[in-house]
Amino acid sequence: MDSGELAERIRAGDRRALARAITLVESARADHRAQAVALLAALGQGRQALRIGLSGTPGVGKSTFIEAFGLMLTGQGLKVAVLAVDPSSARSGGSILGDKTRMERLSRDPRAFIRPSPSQAQMGGVARRTREATALCEAAGFDVVLVETVGVGQSEVMVAGMTDLFMLLMAPAGGDELQGVKRGIMEMADLILVNKADGDLKAAALRTCADYAGALRLLRRRPQDPAGFPRAMTVSAVEGAGMAEAWAEMRALADWRRDNGWFAAARAAQARTWFEEEVRAGLLARLDRPGPLRARMEDLGESVAAARISPAAAAAELLALIESGAGALDAGSESP
Amino acid sequence: MDSGELAERIRAGDRRALARAITLVESARADHRAQAVALLAALGQGRQALRIGLSGTPGVGKSTFIEAFGLMLTGQGLKVAVLAVDPSSARSGGSILGDKTRMERLSRDPRAFIRPSPSQAQMGGVARRTREATALCEAAGFDVVLVETVGVGQSEVMVAGMTDLFMLLMAPAGGDELQGVKRGIMEMADLILVNKADGDLKAAALRTCADYAGALRLLRRRPQDPAGFPRAMTVSAVEGAGMAEAWAEMRALADWRRDNGWFAAARAAQARTWFEEEVRAGLLARLDRPGPLRARMEDLGESVAAARISPAAAAAELLALIESGAGALDAGSESP
Repeated sequence: MDSGELAERIRAGDRRALARAITLVESARADHRAQAVALLAALGQGRQALRIGLSGTPGVGKSTFIEAFGLMLTGQGLKVAVLAVDPSSARSGGSILGDKTRMERLSRDPRAFIRPSPSQAQMGGVARRTREATALCEAAGFDVVLVETVGVGQSEVMVAGMTDLFMLLMAPAGGDELQGVKRGIMEMADLILVNKADGDLKAAALRTCADYAGALRLLRRRPQDPAGFPRAMTVSAVEGAGMAEAWAEMRALADWRRDNGWFAAARAAQARTWFEEEVRAGLLARLDRPGPLRARMEDLGESVAAARISPAAAAAELLALIESGAGALDAGSESP
Repeated sequence: MDSGELAERIRAGDRRALARAITLVESARADHRAQAVALLAALGQGRQALRIGLSGTPGVGKSTFIEAFGLMLTGQGLKVAVLAVDPSSARSGGSILGDKTRMERLSRDPRAFIRPSPSQAQMGGVARRTREATALCEAAGFDVVLVETVGVGQSEVMVAGMTDLFMLLMAPAGGDELQGVKRGIMEMADLILVNKADGDLKAAALRTCADYAGALRLLRRRPQDPAGFPRAMTVSAVEGAGMAEAWAEMRALADWRRDNGWFAAARAAQARTWFEEEVRAGLLARLDRPGPLRARMEDLGESVAAARISPAAAAAELLALIESGAGALDAGSESP
């Protein structure tokens, strides 16, 4: 099936076509990459979903929150896609479960689409896959794309850099634990949701929320925020409490940013960053591709190891070879 | 002065020529880079010094240790160069003082050469500068090149990756603090030196040393280590105690590695890594160089920001342009 046909099926809302396309953008194979690029071009970038980043450490109740929040949205007739980003999945098996059983009801909802994190350690690969999968979900007609990640700095920065709103899901904590929250993470958050505001933990959740609210007030006001943002609020994923309020806050913030040009500006900047990262990755990928260039690099590497030539001189020689238009050198091999 | 003449002066032991050459390899200017490459090629790689990496957190007594250790070596007629690596210097002003007053006696020693860390944040730049400065010091006839760094993971890995022996200087600590030492750092160390084994702290230093020795025994035996290595010992920089013993251990380890091929193998692998990093850095540098390629990247970036083309498609277009031998595109501008 060519990219045009696959694009049609995706636009028509064919889930299997969407899943297949995401598998395509997850692939590192050069021919798959070429097909993915063609597919993304065929789909264009007309349709926009609201991209929401959600981060929280394991145990804070992310899955329960996403299921409750997602079901509320689908209950309103909205189509919701959930993409998981878990850089640790390759190593540890991941903190985000690969199977969908953790969000059983949402995964059975015809208006929802859940895609687990691929087992892929390399951050660049995860970033590309998530950006492209998000674009595919937008083209597939989803209204909200929720990008979920575990609370590890690097992946949070990545997700905040590819979403319109960034949520931080927190658990009730003692005042001292509060200090543990990295300032950098706080500064990325648009909304801090303190979960488990129910039963025995309700009082602690309210206290924690007040603590975060105080901490947020100490942060420098960001130009892309209306008055009162970033803000903190409590929710209870198990009771489904606060879901509508949280959604109202997200919509209010997104609307304000749209009206004031911040929404489009952020998307433009994110797209540009994505482009530049793709160029850098593609340029470096040439060095690993089989072909005369790679062969020459191996030879020079041997000479360097044998101290027949200095590393700097060998590097200069190889770079000069590339400069000289010797891109032609590996023209025979697959394109990135 | 051309690179041949500069090389001659460096070989002749001219300190000002050496300092000038290090300034050259520290420069980011393309013409300086070309001169640096020519100089390193002119100097060749015949002479080898013993490259010793030394890491320790601020306050552990690095400067005092290096002065005492360095003076002992120069007292034996050896020529000692000290290169500081401090990635934080650009930001915080650095934990390693820029001026030489912290090692006043050693800096006045005619057999010693001390070069402070340049204020340069970018790790790649620091790595290149340190590798090349080390090569310059070897060519200048130094017997020992001591590469000093502050105890921050990234710089320790970098220094361990460009030296023959890696020392960890530690302060006396409580058993619980011991847990704080990252396993990764322990695994890089060839020798752990517990400093301040004098006065009130002597007992604590001995206990700490025993703790580290125990921890080291738990690590997997590395093929490049003779029996008993990596090991821990106590020193007192202020009293100059343990300097000769530490040097004896370093020599014993270096000799064993030479006799068993590990020394040459490590140097070969390090040189190869250096070469490959230079190629990658040089390739990416092309994108920042003024010229038609850069201009095209700017144009495409604008189109991506305006959503006229997808980031993936724009990246593919620019990469195809580079592939097509359009390295010629920026042939007019300076070489990396």
